[in-house]
Order: sequence, then C-alpha cells, then structure tokens
Amino acid sequence: MNDDLILLGHGSGGVLSHKLLSDLIIPALSGTPLSGQDDAAVLNIDAGRIAFTTDSYVVDPIFFPGGNIGSLAVNGTVNDLAMVGATPLYVSCGLIIEEGFSRKELSAIVTSMRQAADLAGVRIVTGDTKVVPRGKADRIFINTAGIGAFVTGQPLSGANAKLGDKVIVSGTIGDHGIAVMAAREGLSLATEIQSDCAALNGLVNEMLAMAGDSLRVLRDPTRGGVATTIKEIAVQSAVTITLDEAALPVDPAVRGVCSILGLDPLYVANEGKLLAVVAPAAAEALLERMRQHPLGKNSAIIGEVATAGVGKVQMKTAVGGVRSVEMLAGEQLPRIC
Amino acid sequence: MNDDLILLGHGSGGVLSHKLLSDLIIPALSGTPLSGQDDAAVLNIDAGRIAFTTDSYVVDPIFFPGGNIGSLAVNGTVNDLAMVGATPLYVSCGLIIEEGFSRKELSAIVTSMRQAADLAGVRIVTGDTKVVPRGKADRIFINTAGIGAFVTGQPLSGANAKLGDKVIVSGTIGDHGIAVMAAREGLSLATEIQSDCAALNGLVNEMLAMAGDSLRVLRDPTRGGVATTIKEIAVQSAVTITLDEAALPVDPAVRGVCSILGLDPLYVANEGKLLAVVAPAAAEALLERMRQHPLGKNSAIIGEVATAGVGKVQMKTAVGGVRSVEMLAGEQLPRIC
Repeated sequence: MNDDLILLGHGSGGVLSHKLLSDLIIPALSGTPLSGQDDAAVLNIDAGRIAFTTDSYVVDPIFFPGGNIGSLAVNGTVNDLAMVGATPLYVSCGLIIEEGFSRKELSAIVTSMRQAADLAGVRIVTGDTKVVPRGKADRIFINTAGIGAFVTGQPLSGANAKLGDKVIVSGTIGDHGIAVMAAREGLSLATEIQSDCAALNGLVNEMLAMAGDSLRVLRDPTRGGVATTIKEIAVQSAVTITLDEAALPVDPAVRGVCSILGLDPLYVANEGKLLAVVAPAAAEALLERMRQHPLGKNSAIIGEVATAGVGKVQMKTAVGGVRSVEMLAGEQLPRIC
Repeated sequence: MNDDLILLGHGSGGVLSHKLLSDLIIPALSGTPLSGQDDAAVLNIDAGRIAFTTDSYVVDPIFFPGGNIGSLAVNGTVNDLAMVGATPLYVSCGLIIEEGFSRKELSAIVTSMRQAADLAGVRIVTGDTKVVPRGKADRIFINTAGIGAFVTGQPLSGANAKLGDKVIVSGTIGDHGIAVMAAREGLSLATEIQSDCAALNGLVNEMLAMAGDSLRVLRDPTRGGVATTIKEIAVQSAVTITLDEAALPVDPAVRGVCSILGLDPLYVANEGKLLAVVAPAAAEALLERMRQHPLGKNSAIIGEVATAGVGKVQMKTAVGGVRSVEMLAGEQLPRIC
C-alpha cells in the first residue's frame, strides 16, 4: 500500500475512510474529533430566515496563481450567500477523488479550504468523501453547500434594479478566468496573472452598512462573466442596463492575454468581484467606501439602468458606438471553476 | 448540435446553461421559474437549531433495480437528517455531468429526484450544474446537501447508547449493495433483487412519537454496512455491542448472492434501513410499531449494549461461537452509492 496516494478503500466508509478522515481531512477542515461525528451536523441559527446555496468545482488545473480548487470552493459558496445579503455561517465539503490522487495535494487543498473558511468567518461543519476508480474522474472535484442567516435587512435579489440606478463593479474583470487559462495552457507571461479568488462577505457587510436599502442588487460575475451576469439582472428586473466600455476596469496583462487569445474580458469568469446596482443618490459615497476596502480598491461605476426595453444590455463602446450585450454563447473556457 | 446530448456549453453559465436549466432541470426539480433564481435560495426556518449534511453520489450503474442515482441522492441526504432526529426540509442539487451524457437519462434522473423529494416531503431549492469534457467524469455525479429543523426534541447522537439498550434494525440487510452489484456485473438472478433505497423520515417520525427519549441512537448503515455502523456507535458511545447472527434479517436471494460472491451481508450497504438503539423497556413496543410501517415490516431486535469494554462489537454466531466484528477493511464494493 502506498501511503502517498488515495486508494479506493479511502471511500469505502470503513477503516481506511475513518483513517483518512481522522488523520487528514477532519483535523484540517474542522478540528472536531471523528468520534463526535454523526450523520448530520447540529447547528444553532438565530434567524427565522436563511440562505442556502451550492456549487460544484471542477476547475482545471486544481492549483493556479492566487488559489486552488479548495479556496475557490469555499469562497465561491461564501460569495453566493453574501450576494443575497446573508451572513455566511456554515459550509459543507463533498469531495470526489480519483483513485491514485496525491495525498499531499489533498492535504494542501483541505488546508486551503480551512484557511479560506477562517478568513471568511465561516465553519466547515459537515462533509463526505467518495473515491472513484482511476480514469473515472479528473483528480478531484469539490462540492460545497453553504448556509447564511439574515440577521437584519431584507434579502437582495437580481429583480430589484430600478430606473436610474448605477451599476458598480468592485474591481478589474476577467482575472480569475485568465489566470486559470494561463496556468492550464502553460502560457509564459512577463507578469503572472493572479486569480482574484476571495471571499466578498466582508466587503458586502461594509456596503450594506453604508447603503442600506439603496443597495438593490448584488451579484458575483463568475461563469459567463460580467456580460452574462448583467444580462441576468436586466432580465430578472425587466429593465435595460447600459454599460460604458471605457469605464470597465481591466488589468493590462489580462487585456493582453485576452487580445492574443481572442477573448472578451466581459465574458471571462471572476471569483472575487461583485456587481452592485445602487440607487443613484447613494452611488458615489458607496463607490468611495468600496475603494477603501482591499477587495474594492479598483471599484468603478460602469453603467446604469436606463429607460425602455425589458431584459436588454447595451454597451457604449470605446469608439462611440452602441452594441447589444448577450449572454455567453457556447463555452469559451471550460472548467474555469 | 445534437439536442439529445449534454455539451460542454451546458456548463458554461451562459445561454446553453440557462436553456438547460429552464427547459429541463428547473421544471423537474423545483418549478420555480429561472427568472426568479438568485445566487442563493432564501428560506424560512422556524427553529433555533438545524441539521446540515452532505453526500456525493457516484453509484455505478446509475440506474439499478429499485432506484437510480437521483432518488438515491435525495433519499440518502434526507436519511442523514432524519438520523439525528431533524425534520428534513430543504435539499440542494449539485450535478457534475460528463460531456456527451444523454439528455433523456438526465431528465429521468432529475424527475426521480423530484419524486423522491415529494415523497419525503422536502423541497429541492438550490442547485448547480457543471459539465466536464468526455473522459473526465463517469456519466454523472450528484451531490446533495440538506437542511433539517429540530422542531421538538433533542438531537440524537451515536454517543447516546447505554448499557442494556436494545439494537433494532428496520429490515433485511444488504439489499442495496447486492442490487447495485448484480446490476453492474449483469448477474442473471431467478429473483431480481431490488435496492431498498427509500426516505426514512416518515418511519423515524413514528418512532420518535412512540419512544421519545427512550430512543437513544439512530443511524443508517450505508457504506460499510451494519457492521461498520454498529462499530461506529460502539466507539462513539464507548460501549460494547453484542449482535446475534441468527436474528439478522437477510433476504434469501441476497444471502445467496453473498455466498456465491464471498460477501458478508453485514458489510454490504443499505439505503433504506436504519439501526436504532433503544432503552430496553421501550424496545418491544417500538419494534411492533416499526413493523406496522411499510419500511419497517421486517424489523428485528438484533443485539444489545452489553457490559464491559469500550468500542467493541461481538457477534454470537449461528453455530454458538463469538467473533469480533470490525469495520470494513479495504473496499469490497466500490461506487455502491
């Protein structure tokens, strides 16, 4: 038996499973002794209303500049909770591992999950580990589900954008997708592009404290990028949103890779950015506040909710034209998260 | 484009993802229109204490007599919530699909998930769909997480078994594992063996109503079978549990396949059975009540919590001897759930 590799028996539910859990996974993720584990975690909730979300992560490569599949899995689910205005509290961890996966890499991944959870102020409280035969999965897939509480305030929804509202993005777009793409393709760049993978709940707390009900919509533009997410908001709120291409913050290195590869950063995934739709009177003050936060320092107003039309997004281009923005068609970057 | 197959673009987050969700997945799973979907579901909880659990399902084959990966994924998570005494309420659905997977099979699977959810009285409220390139996963993997509420009563735990308590199993053991194994290997049997895949929360409700605090432990013996689960209870409660081999209910067809293949039904997975540890004074009445429930009609007292020793399980064999029962070593039936 090779102690460095994950074996089928580690997913059996028997002796090897217990050993993997007690030696590696549980100490890293939760610290609760295995002997205290029941079929479900029992948790306190001081709220009559909760948020519940899930995402699976199949990113390739599993390690990339700025993060790995583990930190991504925690931050992604934390962000989905934060986007509806909930306080993220608890996260689950479902691992599907390919037989022969490196135990050392598994350890690095679950350690990252715990670090991300600690940074975001959430606890990983329940989990499951399955192992499939070699060739039946690609190294490791992670599912996280998350629970958040609404302590105060109303849930946010993509349906709340109103005429005249401003649209803010919390920083440069496309960083995550291009960082993963560059790592996957082994592109050698003068400046390494880092994924923006981060938990946004701290930033959201400050935004909610400042803007209150003036904050209409929050959404994180992951798969499909800013274009797809803005289009979703326009459809949900039955409005038209106009974007100003010149106002979109794009890192020069990301812009460079995008133009070489023929990608539009507007469609490239982000994992540590949010879009906010905010009442016009509150927009400038909110923008200033966001810029003071480490995760919002490149925030910019990129558009507004305009008159007429339902479910449309229009872009004022840098050269003075107007083009229609649609959701991502096809799949330009598979396995980006 | 082949309309019958799942494409990479269905996992892009863009147009094809939205179409798959609105045409197939959401109508089947929840009925909530796609336009009402935010990053997380907002749910009411009338309890200060909840249960939270997750499991991933990688069963092979994905369709088997008595169920499929979809019904299994819902029932398994419902059961984990029921085993700690919570009322299962909400379930998430994370799909990882291999490119080229049949859309018709996907439809059958999510339809089964909804049927299982309706039968169990839970709602599938949030989900995620990823598609990986052909060869990077095996058809479909499903993760479900679940939330339950403690309306009344204390959470149950595997740590509560006490000296003199009786151990009850709710029916024949090993049915699920052998049904899946037979389907996978194409065994041709005189009598088709059905998986016992079912939601146990209805049975548990009746048991809790009848036995109250006399019900010390509930656990569903899935991967690793009855042997592994009983051993876990013995370890958690720091007791010895003795089992009576002659009392173990085993379907004759399952026993037959087990003896041909050299498997011990005590280690074979169940997906619709529970183990209960109950105070001796309440055991007979509880057993009678369980036998009146469709999912408990073959319930039997199979052992008791005995004197002396910590974390041990001993089996009185049919021929009068005593042997030690340990957790499953290695992996006899990979991808059984």
